[in-house]
Amino acid sequence: MNPELIREAAQRIKPLARRTPVLNYENIYFKCENLQRGGSFKIRGASNLILSLSLEQASKGVVAFSSGNHAQAVAIAAKHVGAPATIVMPQDAPKSKMDPTRALGATIVTYNRLTDDREAIAAKLMGETGATLVPPYDHEMIMAGQGTAALELLEEVPDLDALVTCVGGGGMTAGCATIAKSINPNIRIFGAEPELANDTFLSFQAGKRIEIAPPETIADGLRSPSPGKLTFPILQELVEAILLVSEEELRSTMKFFLNKMKLVVEPSGAASTAAVLAGKLPQDIRKIGVIVSGGNIDLGPDGIA
Amino acid sequence: MNPELIREAAQRIKPLARRTPVLNYENIYFKCENLQRGGSFKIRGASNLILSLSLEQASKGVVAFSSGNHAQAVAIAAKHVGAPATIVMPQDAPKSKMDPTRALGATIVTYNRLTDDREAIAAKLMGETGATLVPPYDHEMIMAGQGTAALELLEEVPDLDALVTCVGGGGMTAGCATIAKSINPNIRIFGAEPELANDTFLSFQAGKRIEIAPPETIADGLRSPSPGKLTFPILQELVEAILLVSEEELRSTMKFFLNKMKLVVEPSGAASTAAVLAGKLPQDIRKIGVIVSGGNIDLGPDGIA
Repeated sequence: MNPELIREAAQRIKPLARRTPVLNYENIYFKCENLQRGGSFKIRGASNLILSLSLEQASKGVVAFSSGNHAQAVAIAAKHVGAPATIVMPQDAPKSKMDPTRALGATIVTYNRLTDDREAIAAKLMGETGATLVPPYDHEMIMAGQGTAALELLEEVPDLDALVTCVGGGGMTAGCATIAKSINPNIRIFGAEPELANDTFLSFQAGKRIEIAPPETIADGLRSPSPGKLTFPILQELVEAILLVSEEELRSTMKFFLNKMKLVVEPSGAASTAAVLAGKLPQDIRKIGVIVSGGNIDLGPDGIA
Repeated sequence: MNPELIREAAQRIKPLARRTPVLNYENIYFKCENLQRGGSFKIRGASNLILSLSLEQASKGVVAFSSGNHAQAVAIAAKHVGAPATIVMPQDAPKSKMDPTRALGATIVTYNRLTDDREAIAAKLMGETGATLVPPYDHEMIMAGQGTAALELLEEVPDLDALVTCVGGGGMTAGCATIAKSINPNIRIFGAEPELANDTFLSFQAGKRIEIAPPETIADGLRSPSPGKLTFPILQELVEAILLVSEEELRSTMKFFLNKMKLVVEPSGAASTAAVLAGKLPQDIRKIGVIVSGGNIDLGPDGIA
């Protein structure tokens, strides 16, 4: 992947994505995407793709499948450009995810997880309207957008020895690894994955994409059952190792963020830091950059009460 | 108060205080001192005073009375310069406040709230050692240090119509109002105080310092029973009004920070924002700066579990 795409994305997404703060705890530097617009890094990729559409494409709308942070990001970016957005969500998605997406003006189409084929639903929608699909990770514009998080982090802290990101479908890791290695070829890149969603870990071992059963981890943003077709080869080339973290390590890292950093971080957002705090990085690494991917904890319709 | 003192403080405290991020929610700009070193703005004043001591003074140590954020700030700054720190705390202060202060190398001297005179205890300590008192607010170097929060905020967002700070003893408000008015004479300054700790509100009405009974508000950082001798005349001159907030408004603002901003904010830190969200500012004000003073919630010895 050409790192120039990430630099272009950084310019393109300025009207929509915030430059989030970098906060440190001793030698660990957190890029706080939990403080990003929409509560996660997802706005970076979604706005990079949507802002690059032609006026004609935008007028036909965009479609995404997601019950999580990607849905809200697509809705925000689509609203900004005036493109109709349709989000395909399982009918049992929590109200706390549906309501904000709908409040942003998106149309929600629900499906039954057990009986319906969501791909067919989306294909039908796109056939009818000519809408553009905004995939959650397996697209060059999405990877490039997500990579801007690492670009900003390295602009502020250029002398990192390592960068750690969480791995779901691998879009953020692919983009961040590409730009980080292009700025500093010696930087060491690590991915962090829940033990219960170890598809990329297993794929690294096998040397090919492995699909696992739907994962049960509390890190709902990292439940993709396999790395992406486009993301995986980039990860294989640039990522030194996938580090696994337990559910208990995710929980205690969320508490670390609340108590020590005064930040609300969602389970997926805690994965990269969990790997660092649990001592899973090689001992000789000193200065560590970590992408804290998001802060959207599902606490029922009223949030923290 | 000379605003030059605040500019000097900004240079002096650089080794100890963080430049905290400014985050916005619509037209409200939050200066996030909950993300400050020690979890509150107090490090600004404490380090401004302590870093200005002579080597001889520093070697004789510093003394502070506090069971809260000021204690930890004094301990951090004293440790940095190698000055022995003694903190005078009530013997029933929570372990969660004593332990971190002690871990920073400070000596804790406890007293009985009902039977002992803490001023006498501190006077005795200072008499024996020649240590310097670091008061929580009523000192020009403390006010100047706290004012650096507003200086940084206005450097990032120069065109604010109003600035809102919480008012305890008035040190932060005095410093912040001084520098804000010096940068922009048209900026409107408001203080926020809990209804249950309305000493400055009453003092404004009376035109002189009023002392109230020990306040019971959950905003433990704002329980000072009267404004300071030095701070009050500055507040009278520069602050347009003291806005009162209810305990319920403090609680709902803490939830707003957790749910919408992904930030942990203590009750005192929520007061200024509570006044804004409850619509207590004049309607014609558009762009509002708010100092979010701290994030140290007392959740027992283990923090949020």
